[in-house]
Amino acid sequence: MNSIALRPPQRFLMGPGPGPVAPSVLEAQAAPTIGHLDPEFIELMDTLQGQLRQVFRTENAFTMAFSSPATAAMEACIVNVLEPGDRALICINGVFGMRLAEMARRCGAEVDTLSFDWGRAVDPEQVARHLHDHAPYKLVAWVQAETSTGALSDSRRLAELTREAGALSLVDAVTAIAGVPLEVDAWGLDMVYAGSQKCLSAPPGLAPLTVSARALEACRNRKTPVQSWFMDFSLLGGYWGGEQRRAYHHTAPVNALYGLHEALRLVLDEGLEARWARHQRIAGLLADGLEAMDINIVPPVAERLPPLTTLSIPDGVDDAALRRWLLDTHSLEIGAGLGALAGKAWRIGLMGHGCTEAAVQRVLGALEEGLKKTVGAAA
Amino acid sequence: MNSIALRPPQRFLMGPGPGPVAPSVLEAQAAPTIGHLDPEFIELMDTLQGQLRQVFRTENAFTMAFSSPATAAMEACIVNVLEPGDRALICINGVFGMRLAEMARRCGAEVDTLSFDWGRAVDPEQVARHLHDHAPYKLVAWVQAETSTGALSDSRRLAELTREAGALSLVDAVTAIAGVPLEVDAWGLDMVYAGSQKCLSAPPGLAPLTVSARALEACRNRKTPVQSWFMDFSLLGGYWGGEQRRAYHHTAPVNALYGLHEALRLVLDEGLEARWARHQRIAGLLADGLEAMDINIVPPVAERLPPLTTLSIPDGVDDAALRRWLLDTHSLEIGAGLGALAGKAWRIGLMGHGCTEAAVQRVLGALEEGLKKTVGAAA
Repeated sequence: MNSIALRPPQRFLMGPGPGPVAPSVLEAQAAPTIGHLDPEFIELMDTLQGQLRQVFRTENAFTMAFSSPATAAMEACIVNVLEPGDRALICINGVFGMRLAEMARRCGAEVDTLSFDWGRAVDPEQVARHLHDHAPYKLVAWVQAETSTGALSDSRRLAELTREAGALSLVDAVTAIAGVPLEVDAWGLDMVYAGSQKCLSAPPGLAPLTVSARALEACRNRKTPVQSWFMDFSLLGGYWGGEQRRAYHHTAPVNALYGLHEALRLVLDEGLEARWARHQRIAGLLADGLEAMDINIVPPVAERLPPLTTLSIPDGVDDAALRRWLLDTHSLEIGAGLGALAGKAWRIGLMGHGCTEAAVQRVLGALEEGLKKTVGAAA
Repeated sequence: MNSIALRPPQRFLMGPGPGPVAPSVLEAQAAPTIGHLDPEFIELMDTLQGQLRQVFRTENAFTMAFSSPATAAMEACIVNVLEPGDRALICINGVFGMRLAEMARRCGAEVDTLSFDWGRAVDPEQVARHLHDHAPYKLVAWVQAETSTGALSDSRRLAELTREAGALSLVDAVTAIAGVPLEVDAWGLDMVYAGSQKCLSAPPGLAPLTVSARALEACRNRKTPVQSWFMDFSLLGGYWGGEQRRAYHHTAPVNALYGLHEALRLVLDEGLEARWARHQRIAGLLADGLEAMDINIVPPVAERLPPLTTLSIPDGVDDAALRRWLLDTHSLEIGAGLGALAGKAWRIGLMGHGCTEAAVQRVLGALEEGLKKTVGAAA
């Protein structure tokens, strides 16, 4: 068994991620491995930091590709800022908000949550009222682009409220980065993490991460050590930070970083505004097509996340059977609903390299065919 | 600047890791990305678990490729087992033992350390005496193959002592796996983590990890939640564990796992014993060559780690200049000394795909040439 080489199928990845990866990114990953202390690798780290600063729209010195999935970067932000007893407000409108709250509890913080319907954005007015009544908090966190529901929240406004309340902001931008406007410095976001595998169109496994000087200052003023050694910003900063000498911390995932470099290069060559506009335009085509099929999109128009469209499963359709049919017949992956939307919704991703008119035609055609078959079979 | 594609140089990686990666592994990584919930990916996870069980020589259900560098797997083992106030004994004979102790302290454990000279193995007799005088401990940890010093410790004997003392064992096998004998079940090791980038000859970024039922039982009996959500074994087990349904935890690094699959396939096709013997034999050739050049190897013969030879820098040689010359002139990387051996030693890796007679000839030839030049220049 072990002597059989792997032959993964060619899929059309139109779920909540990973999205499709450009061939040149896959090829870049296959370049020969070099050492993580090699001068050429140090130069690559510098270049990556510059690319990431452009994509995050920030001047933050602490900007890096964390060597782990975004989930670990999420936890890194939480554990560096929060100490036992610190107060945090977590906005929850899906799976990832819940996860943020759970992580904050695990570091002993006093966690307040503010919940919103699944499929809806975080409501800034509710946040404003809550902060007015319950501040001060050390941290306010939200998910800009809820991958579990397809809802887009207004990070600019939420950051304003957070700063007015004297708190640090933490933003999950996993599905936001390079897909929708994200302005770290202009909006005054303090900690933002993302994933490589959504609109950046690199393979999964890396987490772009940026932290403001203000948040780092709060980390320096901690009374207790950060509970995680691996995630400790002061150590990560010594490795990735601007200093001449990069202090060994762990062995960076060299080849994955080659891929990220190429993916960021493609993003910046396209231009961020052009890329945001493309996601907006193509998602509009998908919405039009679904509307023409009488299929309902879960979030209200103003709260929709272009890279990820969440639609209600039409009555009488077998959720799992149809998704399996799409995969088996068309090699096309779409996502199931999660949490409150499990069994009730599908998620269609149009991310980065996969955000094209052809992809919209493909998924609409396949869905139409599949729904006829499935509904026919059920009738 | 951003439109320049990366062209990493072809290096001869003969440092402490990453080691050279087989072309078929690099190529496997470049296969098209599939979804982390795709049935084909679930099958790949099963296959990987089977391969890893063979390489670890274990039947442990909890055996996986953790989606992070080995440093994070190290921390995962620590934080899952230790609770505030638990007693741990950490054996320190290099950088990685120190790191284990620091991580254990950060989760509030009461940490005793037992230190050994850098370049020497952990001495089982000292450990036995210490355990006799100071047990009970919940955990005893050591580094089987100290990558910072090239010393190989006797995990079989240390595990025996640990078990007799009623403690759980934690073994760093980062540079041990697939390079020297490692028998998780036969030796009764409870938690063992490794790295993808040493003798497994995959790119860096993944951490093979296996945990015994006994250690998992200790985790289940905790009184407090594991401080890390990302590293929590009960959640990771739900994702990678033997159950039919794999509970979403994070997006696995799909392409990196393709590479690991191919790397493990090559290891198992060669056969573990044959691979261990190859490392032993080739390291012997390097030792002979160094001896012929009157260069001293730091660890005593019985405590040497075949995949990584640590040698004393001859008097009068400029450490950094010679390493830089090797890189610039021969595209050959060797490692600097770390910690107590900084400036005093070099580390030459002969790992996996790079553990060949040709590599030995190359590094000996280049060293001879370089030493003549450098000493000549200094004279």
